[in-house]
Amino acid sequence: MDREIIANIKTLGIDMIKEAGSGHPGIVLGAAPIIYTLYAKHMNINVNDEKWLNRDRFVMSAGHGSALLYATLFMAGYSLTLEDLKKFRTIHSKTPGHPEVGITPGVDMSTGPLGQGIASAVGMAIAEKKLEYETKLKNGKSLIQHKVYVLCGDGDLMEGISSEAASLAGTLQLNNLIVLYDSNNVCLDGNTNITFQENVCERFKAMGWNTIHVKNGNNVNEIDRAIQSAKRSAKPTLIEVKTIIGDGSLLAGTNIVHGKGLTDDDIKQLKFNLQIPQPAFYVNEQAKQDMQRQIYTRGNTKYGEWATNYQMFMNEFSNKENYEFIFKDDKQYDLLNYHFNLNANDREAMRISNKKIMNEIAKYVPNLLGGSADLASATNVYLEQLGDFSKENLNGKNIWFGVREHAMGAILNGISFYHYKVFGSTFLSFSDYLKPAMRMAAIMKRPISYIFTHDSIGIGQDGPTHQPIEQLVSLRAIPNFNVFRPCDAKEIIGCWHIILQSKETPSALIISRNETPILESSDAKEVLNGAYIIEKEQGELDGIVIATGTEVHNAIHIARDLYHEKKINLRIVSMPSREIFLKTSPEYQEQILPKGYKKFVIEAGSSLGWEKFVYNEKYLFTIDMFGASGTKDDVYQYCHFDYETIKTKILNLLR
Amino acid sequence: MDREIIANIKTLGIDMIKEAGSGHPGIVLGAAPIIYTLYAKHMNINVNDEKWLNRDRFVMSAGHGSALLYATLFMAGYSLTLEDLKKFRTIHSKTPGHPEVGITPGVDMSTGPLGQGIASAVGMAIAEKKLEYETKLKNGKSLIQHKVYVLCGDGDLMEGISSEAASLAGTLQLNNLIVLYDSNNVCLDGNTNITFQENVCERFKAMGWNTIHVKNGNNVNEIDRAIQSAKRSAKPTLIEVKTIIGDGSLLAGTNIVHGKGLTDDDIKQLKFNLQIPQPAFYVNEQAKQDMQRQIYTRGNTKYGEWATNYQMFMNEFSNKENYEFIFKDDKQYDLLNYHFNLNANDREAMRISNKKIMNEIAKYVPNLLGGSADLASATNVYLEQLGDFSKENLNGKNIWFGVREHAMGAILNGISFYHYKVFGSTFLSFSDYLKPAMRMAAIMKRPISYIFTHDSIGIGQDGPTHQPIEQLVSLRAIPNFNVFRPCDAKEIIGCWHIILQSKETPSALIISRNETPILESSDAKEVLNGAYIIEKEQGELDGIVIATGTEVHNAIHIARDLYHEKKINLRIVSMPSREIFLKTSPEYQEQILPKGYKKFVIEAGSSLGWEKFVYNEKYLFTIDMFGASGTKDDVYQYCHFDYETIKTKILNLLR
Repeated sequence: MDREIIANIKTLGIDMIKEAGSGHPGIVLGAAPIIYTLYAKHMNINVNDEKWLNRDRFVMSAGHGSALLYATLFMAGYSLTLEDLKKFRTIHSKTPGHPEVGITPGVDMSTGPLGQGIASAVGMAIAEKKLEYETKLKNGKSLIQHKVYVLCGDGDLMEGISSEAASLAGTLQLNNLIVLYDSNNVCLDGNTNITFQENVCERFKAMGWNTIHVKNGNNVNEIDRAIQSAKRSAKPTLIEVKTIIGDGSLLAGTNIVHGKGLTDDDIKQLKFNLQIPQPAFYVNEQAKQDMQRQIYTRGNTKYGEWATNYQMFMNEFSNKENYEFIFKDDKQYDLLNYHFNLNANDREAMRISNKKIMNEIAKYVPNLLGGSADLASATNVYLEQLGDFSKENLNGKNIWFGVREHAMGAILNGISFYHYKVFGSTFLSFSDYLKPAMRMAAIMKRPISYIFTHDSIGIGQDGPTHQPIEQLVSLRAIPNFNVFRPCDAKEIIGCWHIILQSKETPSALIISRNETPILESSDAKEVLNGAYIIEKEQGELDGIVIATGTEVHNAIHIARDLYHEKKINLRIVSMPSREIFLKTSPEYQEQILPKGYKKFVIEAGSSLGWEKFVYNEKYLFTIDMFGASGTKDDVYQYCHFDYETIKTKILNLLR
Repeated sequence: MDREIIANIKTLGIDMIKEAGSGHPGIVLGAAPIIYTLYAKHMNINVNDEKWLNRDRFVMSAGHGSALLYATLFMAGYSLTLEDLKKFRTIHSKTPGHPEVGITPGVDMSTGPLGQGIASAVGMAIAEKKLEYETKLKNGKSLIQHKVYVLCGDGDLMEGISSEAASLAGTLQLNNLIVLYDSNNVCLDGNTNITFQENVCERFKAMGWNTIHVKNGNNVNEIDRAIQSAKRSAKPTLIEVKTIIGDGSLLAGTNIVHGKGLTDDDIKQLKFNLQIPQPAFYVNEQAKQDMQRQIYTRGNTKYGEWATNYQMFMNEFSNKENYEFIFKDDKQYDLLNYHFNLNANDREAMRISNKKIMNEIAKYVPNLLGGSADLASATNVYLEQLGDFSKENLNGKNIWFGVREHAMGAILNGISFYHYKVFGSTFLSFSDYLKPAMRMAAIMKRPISYIFTHDSIGIGQDGPTHQPIEQLVSLRAIPNFNVFRPCDAKEIIGCWHIILQSKETPSALIISRNETPILESSDAKEVLNGAYIIEKEQGELDGIVIATGTEVHNAIHIARDLYHEKKINLRIVSMPSREIFLKTSPEYQEQILPKGYKKFVIEAGSSLGWEKFVYNEKYLFTIDMFGASGTKDDVYQYCHFDYETIKTKILNLLR
């Protein structure tokens, strides 16, 4: 029956693309036998419990293969109707243009931008390894024990992010990860001869992977044997399956068939040769039932074992509090009423304060997990005494991502689907490197936190490549993304309070490298308003200065100086989160920033986005140029951002 | 004398870091023998003509090794004084924290963010290959014929961008590229065991490279032989040199010595063991002279050959116009008075129009060179009949970057130093992938152009991962970076006119996928003002709509509808470049956007940066949410960006 099922998956995919008027037939026809073999003969899933915690995961890294995936999920018996398939690529359908998690039953990961999927799957494999370790039963089995499968194409493997992630997967020996490589030597623009001549299997071998070559991508038995062998490997496995793009189409083997629907004539001959009746969306019910039966027979046994294991788990694990995060993620963390040992006027670098705070949090958030892209020593993002994650120490809570910011971002996305509270860290300037992965987090509503330190030209000597300018606005512009720039340790606590409550929004915590005193008047709980008055005017209000991060300290000094020198009454507003403040009530906003008063903004970053608060750009003390290498003070002067310049300009504008 | 020179390079580097109070001693002590051997025994340079076109290039990809580089350049005889070295990491010095091209004589590339250097060097190697081909003399030699050397560390090789670039270098068999890999098994956070266990040489072999292993990184002869062998290779070469980080320091072999200055005691014992007198900045003049002599002896011969070749070149190449770009880049291109065959109301996708225009430009800009990250078929950025660059066709003008956006960005940076006018292309949504490289272009003032198509939710069916939202503002926020979003083919011409004149500013040309008519009233030369009135109000002005790109067409229709239906007089302003408009005179700005009138903005992207033009956010028709998969019209509605919604809201706001 294999042949019939594969043929039907192919024609359903082709009909969907025809109906939608766009899509990617090449992978549908080329890779159908791969995905069929995987789902029918290996995937441990329960189509009636699509969120089953111990299901095998599948990531369609070649996200343009969505039609193939949906057709397969339909044939597998997930709750997708023919009607759903017919609505491929239409608004509010269950079958969007690229796979979107949360929309389609059976889709475990949103994909589309190449390379993201395979790197996220590495994150899933890390999470599975950890959970497998953490849920070990007395009988030696684990509550969580499953595989992570990926289907990827040449494009995924050309992307740097996949190399980064694969190198880490090799180092960590994630043998629960099996990548099926649809190797057809053709990409969007043509043959890969001109762009991609490397020996992929040898490359993966060098990175510590097991590799298997499948000569004939239409041979279900050969694919089946390869997956069987991969499942027994002590290393992650890459199975290179040689396929023909658009197999069976008149354009088979060409790049044209990659992303352009087949002509009517082509569909006709294809269906004829596949022995599928001509009418669109024909379903061979017997084939569908056979595929469902194969999945059910295997999956049901596994699902039964799960029930038994779950019972044992509940009996054996007495300290359930530490494990309930595996099943639900509804714990409320209240940092505002937690006692942190902080004293006003204590001076310390915010990155150090943040480290202390994170380490306190780790004490009662057992599922905190994350790491740094080889900058833990500088960002100070490290959970002391909680160990480093490695194949020898699956218990470790610190993941060493290496100098791989982009993979870090995608790996965090993958882990986050396992309800760990994940974080990553690097310099703010290098946040650019992981932006595409952060965007995926925002699209997929993953509550990941990123700690970006070294947050402005204030870092000084390392020079313009290390001095962020446009990064703050770039992050603020991402939909469904919170950016926090606290001014001291107390505000950091407020930020973490919000971050830990976030269920669907990623957050960036932007902190400086420099030593900063804790302010008398800062307030953790005010961070919930996004902005608040941190220094009230002494008398009748002359003007308001909005500042963020370390600039708040300068703003307060300017206010005090101008009061003492000129009896000018400035109000200072700390705005740790622009987005949150703009969501507060108009009344609150008016209370903090009343209309009719001159307002100024001080932030060591791009002016974009700040104009709305001020009369015109003269009132903005921001930076729209690259910095330079020098002491902090020298670079501030170089960028016209030094204390005296700002103070004098504010004074002149108030006159 | 090798030993003495290396010792002196080491102590100068260490003294610089001590004096500056920050820097990276690990690489100074570990890699000094490598860089010394390269400069003393191989680099063909002329320290008195640092911009010699045919010099060998050196890229310090491990940019934190700046002290090592500067000390070496000093000993090599470049115009760097001891005073310059003492000013390491201070403002306006010739010796900034990370290498910056244009500031330090002998520095060929700005580096710092890891991976960028090695990928840019691949671009240099591509440019060299092309020029070597293009400047071939009758005697078989070429005017341009040199090597590109890179020094990189573990961090560079963990970054995905280096894998992308190396894979392409292997495919293109760039045997003029030699990468020296300072392999010390230590990165910033610790030993690479936990992060990076792969076999780097095997990985590079799989990517088509020649690889050489140097066991002892202190053995000048062994390094020398490796480089000699690499120079004869038919493939690019990776030389893995095993070194000890911080060799000679008390902290040798640890990650602590990577980025932290040595203690006084440590410096003392180091100098003692290296037989260097204790006083800071000691220079062994004999050693310096010896190193200069080695370089001069070899370099002078090469420099002499260059003079001869140059004479032959001038005699042999009759059509000098086509080659003068090699020597100078001062040609003025006037597209505004060039006749393009365009008719108002012609409908065609802007990406098609752009292709025609670029192909016209290519006819008289002989040094136009670039390509796409495997999306040429979709972005339509392709120079017809000018061939594809490959090892068999060095004449080709189209570079196939593969699905490697980030490497594309860095490779363009490298090529741009050879005075080619380079361009790259992908979807706007994927501009995120190459952002770090575009930032380097802006910092280094490289006049590169990026053509980003599929510029909004208007692409429809591919869904949110492919629909840009925050990308426009992210690009606009980069200092020294021009963003163009033309509304039709005529404006595209105006954009290219400016792009071709740009000498120090990179540009992004943002165009849509959809079919768009050429407007009667659009004007190429008005692009030079950044914004202009494209549809004048019919009577007394009621309001002004600012729009960009395809939104200009909708704005014009709204104006016409509201005039016919309600006799409302709207002025429509097309703003293809926000940055350029904001640099025009206040008078011009007042003429286009007079104060005291209601203004609206329509742009299918983030609102950030637009607030300055309007009264409040109600007047902004922008998109701060992710799109969805559906038809263009459905997605517009989903994002409240459809024609009727905008028209109605404008009408209500005008009442």
